[in-house]
Amino acid sequence: MEVFEAVKTVLATRSYLGTPIPPEITRRIVDAAHLTASSMNRQPWHFIVVEDPKVLKQLGGLARTGPYVADAPLAVVVVIEKTDFAVSDASRAIQSMILTAWSSGVASNWVGFFGLDEVKPALGIPGDLDVLAIIPFGYPVVAKSGEKKKRKPLREVVHSGRFGTPFA
Amino acid sequence: MEVFEAVKTVLATRSYLGTPIPPEITRRIVDAAHLTASSMNRQPWHFIVVEDPKVLKQLGGLARTGPYVADAPLAVVVVIEKTDFAVSDASRAIQSMILTAWSSGVASNWVGFFGLDEVKPALGIPGDLDVLAIIPFGYPVVAKSGEKKKRKPLREVVHSGRFGTPFA
Repeated sequence: MEVFEAVKTVLATRSYLGTPIPPEITRRIVDAAHLTASSMNRQPWHFIVVEDPKVLKQLGGLARTGPYVADAPLAVVVVIEKTDFAVSDASRAIQSMILTAWSSGVASNWVGFFGLDEVKPALGIPGDLDVLAIIPFGYPVVAKSGEKKKRKPLREVVHSGRFGTPFA
Repeated sequence: MEVFEAVKTVLATRSYLGTPIPPEITRRIVDAAHLTASSMNRQPWHFIVVEDPKVLKQLGGLARTGPYVADAPLAVVVVIEKTDFAVSDASRAIQSMILTAWSSGVASNWVGFFGLDEVKPALGIPGDLDVLAIIPFGYPVVAKSGEKKKRKPLREVVHSGRFGTPFA
């Protein structure tokens, strides 16, 4: 799928079919994260691939805003260093993963930011790192490709030349 | 360009041809930002399209890490609310813009995070907002599509099931 088409059509998805994600797609998703650019190329991140249904259930129980992680066939837990640009760097990597997955028909959603500290002991994550997000992935139960995104009017957030001059 | 191909090949680029960016590509770039998902759909962001060479020169003078903004035909200044998830939300929007532009042959780079406060008065940005980044866009002087990204080994940052178990 072409990039802008993916950006335009990708939808946050919270229910997944049980169908497993083929290993080559999982690999492409984490490759996309790994290849993303970061400030001063520091790559202050880790990505934990979780496919064990028991662990996915446990994560769904811990993530207050994402109980549906329990039913996904795959989740990537995004772990960051406690450094200045780690949140923005890892957010870019997450966007790369979400778009790459969507391009292969795999839907996802960003699960954060609450209750994630308890994920650390569950996955053996060192105390000096933070869990930024859990990204569950799966084939969507309902194909919603025609759904329209709800966004503020473009002229409210895109300005021309100067703040306050709407972009035509 | 297919999403993963864009993720794999996109390169941070700091020298641009003077060739202007066609309006439909500029529009697609800001559309990509505007359509990106954000935490609780709050869209805590603004995008200022700058194409005036005088203003681009001024921005290049202010952005300590990005003097090359001065020579770009286009820059998008990314402005965020001072709220909890604004950095991660806007970082996702920036990644959408960078990939969308690259897919049309337009290169870019993230310029931040220093010296950006002075951009606020220059562009009439209200004091209660922050400038997260300036993203200059342009056709690259040198096509570097074959260049290999320098990244940590995959097994160092991608884990299987548990932190510390390298992903094969």
